Amino acid sequence: MLNFEFCSPTKFVFGRDTQKRVGALVKEFGGSRVLVVYGGGSVVRSGLLAAVLASLDAEGLYHMELGGVKPNPRSDLVYEGIDICKKNGIDFVLPVGGGSAIDTAKAIADGALYDGDFWDFYSRKAVVTKALPHGCVLTIPAAGSEGSNSSVITKIEGNLKRGLGTEFHRPRFAVMNPELTFTLPRYQLACGITDMMAHIMERYFTNTPDVALTDRLAEALLCSIIEAAPTAMANDHDYESHATLMWAGMLAHNNSVGVDREQDWASHQMGHEISAKYDTAHGASLAVMFPAWMKYVYKHDVKRFVRFATIVWGVDPAGKTDEEIALAGIHAMQSFFVSLGMPATLEQAGGCRADIPELTAKVVNGKTGKFVELLPPQIEEVYALACEA
Amino acid sequence: MLNFEFCSPTKFVFGRDTQKRVGALVKEFGGSRVLVVYGGGSVVRSGLLAAVLASLDAEGLYHMELGGVKPNPRSDLVYEGIDICKKNGIDFVLPVGGGSAIDTAKAIADGALYDGDFWDFYSRKAVVTKALPHGCVLTIPAAGSEGSNSSVITKIEGNLKRGLGTEFHRPRFAVMNPELTFTLPRYQLACGITDMMAHIMERYFTNTPDVALTDRLAEALLCSIIEAAPTAMANDHDYESHATLMWAGMLAHNNSVGVDREQDWASHQMGHEISAKYDTAHGASLAVMFPAWMKYVYKHDVKRFVRFATIVWGVDPAGKTDEEIALAGIHAMQSFFVSLGMPATLEQAGGCRADIPELTAKVVNGKTGKFVELLPPQIEEVYALACEA
Repeated sequence: MLNFEFCSPTKFVFGRDTQKRVGALVKEFGGSRVLVVYGGGSVVRSGLLAAVLASLDAEGLYHMELGGVKPNPRSDLVYEGIDICKKNGIDFVLPVGGGSAIDTAKAIADGALYDGDFWDFYSRKAVVTKALPHGCVLTIPAAGSEGSNSSVITKIEGNLKRGLGTEFHRPRFAVMNPELTFTLPRYQLACGITDMMAHIMERYFTNTPDVALTDRLAEALLCSIIEAAPTAMANDHDYESHATLMWAGMLAHNNSVGVDREQDWASHQMGHEISAKYDTAHGASLAVMFPAWMKYVYKHDVKRFVRFATIVWGVDPAGKTDEEIALAGIHAMQSFFVSLGMPATLEQAGGCRADIPELTAKVVNGKTGKFVELLPPQIEEVYALACEA
Repeated sequence: MLNFEFCSPTKFVFGRDTQKRVGALVKEFGGSRVLVVYGGGSVVRSGLLAAVLASLDAEGLYHMELGGVKPNPRSDLVYEGIDICKKNGIDFVLPVGGGSAIDTAKAIADGALYDGDFWDFYSRKAVVTKALPHGCVLTIPAAGSEGSNSSVITKIEGNLKRGLGTEFHRPRFAVMNPELTFTLPRYQLACGITDMMAHIMERYFTNTPDVALTDRLAEALLCSIIEAAPTAMANDHDYESHATLMWAGMLAHNNSVGVDREQDWASHQMGHEISAKYDTAHGASLAVMFPAWMKYVYKHDVKRFVRFATIVWGVDPAGKTDEEIALAGIHAMQSFFVSLGMPATLEQAGGCRADIPELTAKVVNGKTGKFVELLPPQIEEVYALACEA
């Protein structure tokens, strides 16, 4: 177990009708001039945006709007938001949506109090020392950005997708009403399920010894997600399964299950390059990269993969070698992703085998991963495994 | 699953040597004039108090000391602490110790900014609306007060033991070095293990449906505690087992595993009356009351007790009725407590069967419990069951 700090200070307001409290929550956390950040039409069509604005109005809060956030959120909208904040004395940023809206809002909040280019933070040229406060209304259980310290933005110039973790990225509050996720397109929900499982698995596969407690917490989350997912996918009005996914998605990424250990994150980094090049949904890129990565690394600690297979996937170990158990677990995971409608191969995710050298060259610093450190030749091999189902 | 709010904002600083950072942490959270609250001699003898004061000195922080906190902490020391705060412009309270020191500090922090009697809060005559900030250095894994919103104080007049939950009771920071727990007397460690398990079980036994995710998290914590306890009890220098207990003790009571459900708390309330009357250690009172309570209520939801028996205690269900499985789980739990050196009966805990009417009469409002509501006749029956091993 490693020494650690853990601080997840967000006030989570979870359950039915909680979006009606957003105005009061913004006020509680000191906001008076609010920039509402959101994506496409669904937040408008569903009436959620109108309800949020009405809640702000009811508290007498000034507000402006910035719509148009897209999946794999991009720097151009961040610059636009920063400009609005600076010109209008905005003191609180309120994303309404999923991880893309929240990550955009976090980047806007970073840049609004900075004289330079916000990309300095994401390119590690500068460190965030102050930021506007932000709180969110979550509509997609997936990225965990509602409770995490991270934000991922793609810079249009060079198609660079980069993440930034800072404690300034923890939302002051997160309004989480599972009913708001009922009408998500099934593909988007499937991507979200994959993403939250990936957040847990990036932490689960570690070389840090003596982490049984957080291992068990991680397995508890994974089992709950796997149990809830088919019900939520099949029934778009089942409150309990959607609620389980929504809360699990937050816990998957606020670092509850990763505090005490070295974490991997190779699959995320390799997946990011796929999303950046082909605009593949984040979850879909992970559904392809995680099985490939596991097939490449499982021999590094086959006992951990045996544990994963038996506890999380219910693989019956009887009559099997450790290697067979491990591979059965990886296969069960990939079959689960496919059952949700996720792609199984790089090609199905919109990619192309011929691009592997280019994808590999873009992986930051030419290496990735802590469970097993991957250099460019190994990264190429993992991408190659992602071409096979 | 119920609607809920969850906010656990404490900054947890966990691991070896972390006590050296306490001065910097007090400063980070705005303290300049500090009241250090602690118990008996162990904190002094071990050199921890001196190290903490040196850390405060290194940051140029003014400090005063209030020692003498005892188990089942009492109101007299709280009044003394409030007086010191008011007369000396104290702006930060720093308990160094276990739950008793932290709960005392919380009550002092409540009262320091209040013109009336701090007991008004604990007797529900007034509501806390402001309090001094506090942070803690934890030396006993047990009460979970380092991450919880609760504090329990015994008023000397009338021997009234009362708890108070308020968000003002969340510490700003908690320094948690498992090495500081190595030299705890074994009985005290055993009480702590029992207490943290009780905090989980008070939440686990619920009538709220569809809480599989938090059920699994609760089971993960219980299994980890049960696994780590014998090692920690047998080896007072085993870092990993002590670290597991310390982190599990916090998670057991910051409400991570209880957010979405109605909780019981009858065993705690009945145990409090035992502690108040006989000065029985809190954990010891729970080791007696929890098995008795379970034997009284298990038929209310035998399936939940079957789950508890098989998952948490590894009871083999083969060839047993549900009732037999449930009882085997309760028996396994009580045997575990006894194996730690905990009492099995009210008498072994220092109590007396003849006092049952008096104990019953003192239970607040004449009723307790949510899983099964207990009125005085039932409370007497549970106390009577606690007289049998």
